Amino acid sequence: MKRTIYLDHAATTPVHPKVLEAMLPYFSEQFGNPSTIYGLGQEARKAVEDARSTVADILGCKPKEVIFTSGGTESDNAAIKGAAFALKDKGNHIVTSSVEHHAVLETCHQLEDYGFETTLLRVDCTGIVTPGAVAAAITPRTTVISIMLANNEVGTIEPIAEIAAMLRTSHPGRIVFHTDAVQGGGSLDINVERLGVDMLSLSAHKFYGPKGVGILYVKQGTPFSPQQKGGAQEMNRRAGTENVPGIVGAAAALRLATENREANNATCRRLRDCFIAGVEARIPDVQLTGHPEMRLPNNASFCFMYVEGEAILLHLDFANIAATSGSACTSGSLDPSHCLLAMGVPHDIAHGSVRFTFGHENTEAEVDEVLNVLTQIVERLRAMSPVGRARKKSA
Amino acid sequence: MKRTIYLDHAATTPVHPKVLEAMLPYFSEQFGNPSTIYGLGQEARKAVEDARSTVADILGCKPKEVIFTSGGTESDNAAIKGAAFALKDKGNHIVTSSVEHHAVLETCHQLEDYGFETTLLRVDCTGIVTPGAVAAAITPRTTVISIMLANNEVGTIEPIAEIAAMLRTSHPGRIVFHTDAVQGGGSLDINVERLGVDMLSLSAHKFYGPKGVGILYVKQGTPFSPQQKGGAQEMNRRAGTENVPGIVGAAAALRLATENREANNATCRRLRDCFIAGVEARIPDVQLTGHPEMRLPNNASFCFMYVEGEAILLHLDFANIAATSGSACTSGSLDPSHCLLAMGVPHDIAHGSVRFTFGHENTEAEVDEVLNVLTQIVERLRAMSPVGRARKKSA
Repeated sequence: MKRTIYLDHAATTPVHPKVLEAMLPYFSEQFGNPSTIYGLGQEARKAVEDARSTVADILGCKPKEVIFTSGGTESDNAAIKGAAFALKDKGNHIVTSSVEHHAVLETCHQLEDYGFETTLLRVDCTGIVTPGAVAAAITPRTTVISIMLANNEVGTIEPIAEIAAMLRTSHPGRIVFHTDAVQGGGSLDINVERLGVDMLSLSAHKFYGPKGVGILYVKQGTPFSPQQKGGAQEMNRRAGTENVPGIVGAAAALRLATENREANNATCRRLRDCFIAGVEARIPDVQLTGHPEMRLPNNASFCFMYVEGEAILLHLDFANIAATSGSACTSGSLDPSHCLLAMGVPHDIAHGSVRFTFGHENTEAEVDEVLNVLTQIVERLRAMSPVGRARKKSA
Repeated sequence: MKRTIYLDHAATTPVHPKVLEAMLPYFSEQFGNPSTIYGLGQEARKAVEDARSTVADILGCKPKEVIFTSGGTESDNAAIKGAAFALKDKGNHIVTSSVEHHAVLETCHQLEDYGFETTLLRVDCTGIVTPGAVAAAITPRTTVISIMLANNEVGTIEPIAEIAAMLRTSHPGRIVFHTDAVQGGGSLDINVERLGVDMLSLSAHKFYGPKGVGILYVKQGTPFSPQQKGGAQEMNRRAGTENVPGIVGAAAALRLATENREANNATCRRLRDCFIAGVEARIPDVQLTGHPEMRLPNNASFCFMYVEGEAILLHLDFANIAATSGSACTSGSLDPSHCLLAMGVPHDIAHGSVRFTFGHENTEAEVDEVLNVLTQIVERLRAMSPVGRARKKSA
């Protein structure tokens, strides 16, 4: 079988061989439970605490501010619920944006069952949330603000540091500011001091680490009510036996991604820019979605007019090319992307969305091949569609 | 360094080599996100669904009744909160036992912040919860009952099928019955029809599977409010990208444990009985805790009078023998076991508790060595302790 050309690195990434190598001893050899006092347990404890220090170094925080979770979704749930419930006597208002991942949106929605209210901020046509929009939404009852570092569908990078600066100036020490950095982990600066956030979520499998492991930064002093109870693990903030190999893998992957960030970003950006230029040169009636510059270096997301994104994806799959129409977490849904609609993309155009996200292991030859295949697919699909044919005749 | 004699299989187990082998392809090769529609994603989807079918076959349920979680603690939290919140309009009373794992006890305790009330059932001196005690605690407001299948500290097996039968007869279809089967997974029958439960929690790393993966059975039709939101995974009951290798490993481990259950139990029982007999023959003033017969085949838990359990453990560790004083999740705490106190063991005697839990890879030679070392340790510690010396003189 022909090798897959994988252009869906925003959905997940393969575990890097060095990461797997770092994890392997902790499955069957150094398998102790870190909560036990004997040697085998203490080896596992040391592995977890070394991983915590590695992550803390990269985030620019203290090790005790790092909590290991089961993934980005748990990190988002734990952060927002953790802060909202801890502060429920001070207020019940949460501010977030209309382009967040569902892990944030549905968490806020669930909190409405417990008396919380959510303001969903509008974004401009590039997907940007402005500090002004955040400021305007704050009420005396606002306790939590959650704005993503980078959008998972269109790659737009949000001005997190500017929002944090506004909060520090206008509402010092009053509101917990969380960022879902799941999509930016590995490619963007996630130093929590520079970002100015109180909480930050990451997911290891987005940066060549294992699935089933997430990271949650919780700044010291941040009100936090743990959601998973039943043991003293993670400094009483996340009960349950630690996923030792997973935690070791998450830290190894984050270190590897950070060490190679500039080189990997340059590779992705070069391939991505070449791909965008090729698409725009060869396929008419296509619209790049998201911000033209403030976007993840590996993201090329488009709306192809007069065709269904899903149809393009199926044909790409026949050609062994992996891409997606938006968030992997909403695949199977027939509704167009909530992000694109929030950015003002009309319903019919949003249906033609396809996201290509590059990795440092992709090649120029792959870009060329995908360009050729994609051009043919879009042409063929448009020829088959009444709208596409009408469009062509009138042109 | 001398090889560790590992007698703490209740805390965690090494991943079985065959289990690791089954997991390996899903880290870096078949690494797709199961929520994507292309081949690589669908391979991962198939792996997850095959794992779900394997688990369902063993539990005797439908695949769609199986939810994969991040561990036993999450399963317990998700089960109890999931049912309690879903039924909050019908009642606010939860019944559980005083010997449950903290994952159950602290979850119930947390629910008290949301207006729920908990009845903690007393147990007899062997740790048994009787169906009569459960029946007596039920009120018209009772919505959830959670009783463990087997105790993690003393190994007592609870009469789950009898409790379920009582509920079916006296309160048909009214109360959700959950069992924390984390400690019995692998060694006990966990067929949900025979047990008669609505929900059942398992943790893969207790039966030679990986850490960071749990299983939650939720019987079709059971009211269930998901705790982790943000995606349609696990049939909308547990959001977040699936831990594909972990899920594959959990199913492989459960299958292996089930296939070899009788043989493994026989090995453990033989070693364990030999060990108990040796301890009782060679060490005076020792009390086997838990039920004499209705106990996990691998559990030997004792209170050694006139000595601290922690001191024994430290000396065992010097001799490269791994055991623990109770639940790994409460290590570091100076309080004696809540289980032993609930069973009526006096405070000073409970301080002398040590739990040895065998695995099928243990040997008779190891049992002999541990017996020799343990006898010397207890003798030496008692000789050093004023209470121990006084006891010896008066004897």
